[in-house]
Amino acid sequence: MSIMEPDLHKLKINDPFLGQYQQLVRNVVIPYQWDALNDRIAEAEPSHAITNFRIAAGLEHGEFYGMVFQDSDVAKWLEAVAWSLCQKPDPELEKTADDVIDLVAAAQCDDGYLNTYFTVKAPGERWTNLAECHELYCAGHMIEAGVAYFQGTGKRALLDVVCKLADHIDSVFGAGENQLHGYPGHPEIELALMRLYDVTQESRYLTLVKYFVEERGAQPHFYDIEYEKRGKTSHWHNYGPAWMVKDKAYSQAHQPLTEQQTAIGHAVRFVYLMTGVAHLARLSNDESKRQDCLRLWNNMVQRQLYITGGIGSQSSGEAFSSDYDLPNDTVYAESCASIGLMMFARRMLEMEADSQYADVMERALYNTVLGGMALDGKHFFYVNPLEVHPKTLAFNHIYDHVKPVRQRWFGCACCPPNIARVLTSLGHYIYTARTDALFINLYVGNSAAVPVGDNELQLRISGNYPWQEQVKIDITSPVKVEHTLALRLPDWCADPQVVLNGEAVTGDVRQGYCYLTRCWQEGDSITLTLPMPVRRLYGNPQVRQQAGKVALQRGPLVYCLEEADNGAALHNLSLPADSAFRVFEGKGLFSHKILIQAEGFVQRVLKVESQPLWQYDRAPTTREAQTLTFIPWFSWANRGEGEMRIWVDEV
Amino acid sequence: MSIMEPDLHKLKINDPFLGQYQQLVRNVVIPYQWDALNDRIAEAEPSHAITNFRIAAGLEHGEFYGMVFQDSDVAKWLEAVAWSLCQKPDPELEKTADDVIDLVAAAQCDDGYLNTYFTVKAPGERWTNLAECHELYCAGHMIEAGVAYFQGTGKRALLDVVCKLADHIDSVFGAGENQLHGYPGHPEIELALMRLYDVTQESRYLTLVKYFVEERGAQPHFYDIEYEKRGKTSHWHNYGPAWMVKDKAYSQAHQPLTEQQTAIGHAVRFVYLMTGVAHLARLSNDESKRQDCLRLWNNMVQRQLYITGGIGSQSSGEAFSSDYDLPNDTVYAESCASIGLMMFARRMLEMEADSQYADVMERALYNTVLGGMALDGKHFFYVNPLEVHPKTLAFNHIYDHVKPVRQRWFGCACCPPNIARVLTSLGHYIYTARTDALFINLYVGNSAAVPVGDNELQLRISGNYPWQEQVKIDITSPVKVEHTLALRLPDWCADPQVVLNGEAVTGDVRQGYCYLTRCWQEGDSITLTLPMPVRRLYGNPQVRQQAGKVALQRGPLVYCLEEADNGAALHNLSLPADSAFRVFEGKGLFSHKILIQAEGFVQRVLKVESQPLWQYDRAPTTREAQTLTFIPWFSWANRGEGEMRIWVDEV
Repeated sequence: MSIMEPDLHKLKINDPFLGQYQQLVRNVVIPYQWDALNDRIAEAEPSHAITNFRIAAGLEHGEFYGMVFQDSDVAKWLEAVAWSLCQKPDPELEKTADDVIDLVAAAQCDDGYLNTYFTVKAPGERWTNLAECHELYCAGHMIEAGVAYFQGTGKRALLDVVCKLADHIDSVFGAGENQLHGYPGHPEIELALMRLYDVTQESRYLTLVKYFVEERGAQPHFYDIEYEKRGKTSHWHNYGPAWMVKDKAYSQAHQPLTEQQTAIGHAVRFVYLMTGVAHLARLSNDESKRQDCLRLWNNMVQRQLYITGGIGSQSSGEAFSSDYDLPNDTVYAESCASIGLMMFARRMLEMEADSQYADVMERALYNTVLGGMALDGKHFFYVNPLEVHPKTLAFNHIYDHVKPVRQRWFGCACCPPNIARVLTSLGHYIYTARTDALFINLYVGNSAAVPVGDNELQLRISGNYPWQEQVKIDITSPVKVEHTLALRLPDWCADPQVVLNGEAVTGDVRQGYCYLTRCWQEGDSITLTLPMPVRRLYGNPQVRQQAGKVALQRGPLVYCLEEADNGAALHNLSLPADSAFRVFEGKGLFSHKILIQAEGFVQRVLKVESQPLWQYDRAPTTREAQTLTFIPWFSWANRGEGEMRIWVDEV
Repeated sequence: MSIMEPDLHKLKINDPFLGQYQQLVRNVVIPYQWDALNDRIAEAEPSHAITNFRIAAGLEHGEFYGMVFQDSDVAKWLEAVAWSLCQKPDPELEKTADDVIDLVAAAQCDDGYLNTYFTVKAPGERWTNLAECHELYCAGHMIEAGVAYFQGTGKRALLDVVCKLADHIDSVFGAGENQLHGYPGHPEIELALMRLYDVTQESRYLTLVKYFVEERGAQPHFYDIEYEKRGKTSHWHNYGPAWMVKDKAYSQAHQPLTEQQTAIGHAVRFVYLMTGVAHLARLSNDESKRQDCLRLWNNMVQRQLYITGGIGSQSSGEAFSSDYDLPNDTVYAESCASIGLMMFARRMLEMEADSQYADVMERALYNTVLGGMALDGKHFFYVNPLEVHPKTLAFNHIYDHVKPVRQRWFGCACCPPNIARVLTSLGHYIYTARTDALFINLYVGNSAAVPVGDNELQLRISGNYPWQEQVKIDITSPVKVEHTLALRLPDWCADPQVVLNGEAVTGDVRQGYCYLTRCWQEGDSITLTLPMPVRRLYGNPQVRQQAGKVALQRGPLVYCLEEADNGAALHNLSLPADSAFRVFEGKGLFSHKILIQAEGFVQRVLKVESQPLWQYDRAPTTREAQTLTFIPWFSWANRGEGEMRIWVDEV
């Protein structure tokens, strides 16, 4: 059994909802980010990323500017462009990207090394600070871009660059006497080399991933060795000197992966690492690594995942904290971490065919990932809280990382281009195309053609997900194809119904997928009905931040209260356990979106003018009826600054 | 109308409850802290404070060690000893203290300067870094000790030292051309000089306080001027270079006091400053400064005070945050801040004769201040949270400052000796002895003699406060004395009853005091009955961290749930709005203490073994009856590590 990555040329998204997001990425986000990379956006923090490449290529004189990982923003933009070109050819954009690729190639050193920070700023310090300096991380992103651009355009220029880069890295790292026994401080190259292996079938790349993964956390510790060797210099100081070297759990390098029991450290690093490990485990049939994936996935999802698909409960280290510690207001939940979670889930799905991975992937996509970008495509969240009280943010340091509205760009700009590349490559997440079955993970409207043996199964998914309950799957293959379709039955749906050519079928349901095997032909049609009553969700009783509270979900969407609809002091609102819900389509910003209303209560202050001096008097409030309006959480903060909260007191 | 500070020799505490605390301070805390100051406690962080004085005095060679304000620990210990000697003579202890005073005198420079850090470590840098280096703060504490030791023992040695020190400071600071136009980064000397003025009637000291207060926040800013002058060196780096210079609100120096609208910055600094300002405002009849005190007191108490009498909502800067932002678990609420709050309240009482100040003073004393020390007198809290979940603390940086159990000593050891000196000088808080009336603020058992004109009013307060409702006040003067007694009617008491010689009286009640004027004589007896039903307290509706929750208070004591009585996961407990309370005396650690029980609920997990993978399932719990046991919050964490919470969901 093997997996065939869907060819995104043959997978056209026409979803009324996410299709618009893709359009937004094409029309707004990609041009906007191109401007940002070239420092043409007045109100945004400077990027300098393209200029760095020009300086490294010798085309311009100047100083490197930006983060040590500034190159990766260019790589992610190129990847977004690559996937976007699959959806819609755009010669002008392709020309721009080709020029960037020429520039990247020109910035590559003769030996294959490619990194503008070190080339321009510290040429003598190559590979001396793996723990802190993101060289392999940047390489990983460029490799991903090279693979994507090859897949998206058929052009090999960047693929050749990154193969040369990967070959160089392969020569530098390994068990050999003259090689570095190191591995990245920020994992990323593992998942990238696996993609490069997929495309090139060059076994050295897979072997190198295995080396990086298995060397990780070995003693004596590589981070300490290189730290001593370079004279104890340190690149990052925000938590004290060399903290990134010392706090090895931050990089998931405190112990070998086989010994790790919990999702720990920097959340993005964790899911990036595990994405590569899961890919490697499947392709190398490595049961031990598969167990590592299952164990760490379970810890993360069962004990450290937010209802929004967010991970990373704390700002310090942008990291996981501990089991069942899920603060709503001080949470980090970086947009990139939820993107990485989707990537990890995708690789788990390819290994396991268990819908729980798709459930989490969908939750991350429709909530935190979409929420990371404003509806205008020009403003972004890095941090995605579940509760915000804007008036307080500036005055209490526990909220230093929280912004009440999306920002135009960031000094550390990892998230915006990451959102762009994941939204343009949705096709990779919709299906898992295995030789034995085509798994449909997400009900995003699209038409696709997937190879089945020597044939091709063509199909079309349509509907108005996630707003409406019916999804239609039409087979459009001109010739008959014998194959199995595996339809995901979402965890949020209590009573899914499958109708095939007008007849209800139960199918063969295993691990959350309904398997339908048949000789498919044009005209075959499946109607999947996924009833979407408003669900009341309750926290795991171990999670103290959710005790006594309820959250609403409809379909895959988590809902929230916003000040714009419900007034300030949202904490004084409560929802009776027996309130009925009204769902209706919103207006303006919320047109084509479903909102929810319910009758609730508000605690009102009695006689404000005579409010007692001492603030803790006997019940200075009275409970009055108030209609509560809930909006899809991903769309919050599109109407200016205001309070927001997901978890509401249930009374 | 003037105030006479009670002579603590004539004020003997014999309270069954706080008397034991005083005994603990005498028998355990003072000797223990003496050992600590001399580095004889193995498990505690080193102090080196006495050695610093020996080195400064030239009696020993060595290096200064410790905080720049290490001297103040010795001063606070001396002050605690002084007050303790009033209560119970102890020749051996007095000899030890006299030796310390000789040592302090020997460490004083010829010109009056006294500070071991600068004398030993940086003699050329005297008065070059007021913003950061605590010279005036240390001077203030030593002045307080000098005043106290004089009042407590009649000995002038330390008083002479500190007068010489104050005179030196008076020569260095002021409006003169060759004087420094500066003021302390950490206020303290203001309140100390006011006490020195009380004792010496030297008007220069009062004038100097006025200078320090009025110069504060003036432009161009003194902190900037001295920063430039010393070549931009900085002593503290924890929040970035020279942050203490830059963040002037931290020291309440961002603007003149008259312009400040909110309690802001480092909480201890704020209340220390305001203690001095209130004292100055009264003695100089300065209506503008009185208004400053009223305005800032009101902001603090109405919008930034915890139910426990704690202040300082955040660990960053040990500081206030903003109006109505009162997190229970990430709060700082330093023990010293509540001691400073008592001091500020005392000075407000002397100015205003309004019981609201005594209400806050009592709340701080019986909750946070007592809670700052373990029942064994050997362990201390620096930070006093209202909710603790120990398992989480080590893994989420928002809890970095929180300890689940009291510690033996601290590298920054301001709190333990501060608790000792306030508990030994309780007499200063019990009464406000004005010429027109004797105000009884606290119902601590004691016998006292207070001058009234040429006579003396002798009285005895007895009872078993705060556990029992009846307080008896017996007049014991052998001769008749015409005077007014003003009995505080606590804010927590809905229905206080006053019986004078067997007859109910209503008295003349103004601003929370019941005034009784009479020619008092031996045998006169007042019985004050303060009914102590368990009260349910509710947060101000602006405070989101208390929404939907209730806290219990009986008398002045705030209660809490602890894991030891109620099991783990306290967040799953709730208290019905109509539950009845049982009060009863506890056992063991809680003997002589009143505990509270009520029938409540616990959310129990249904079928733990089959708990769903996905943590947010539909109501995975059931609500079962459970008896809730509440203990006085000040006595929490005396049974090892466990969860604690004050605010409980009300259902």
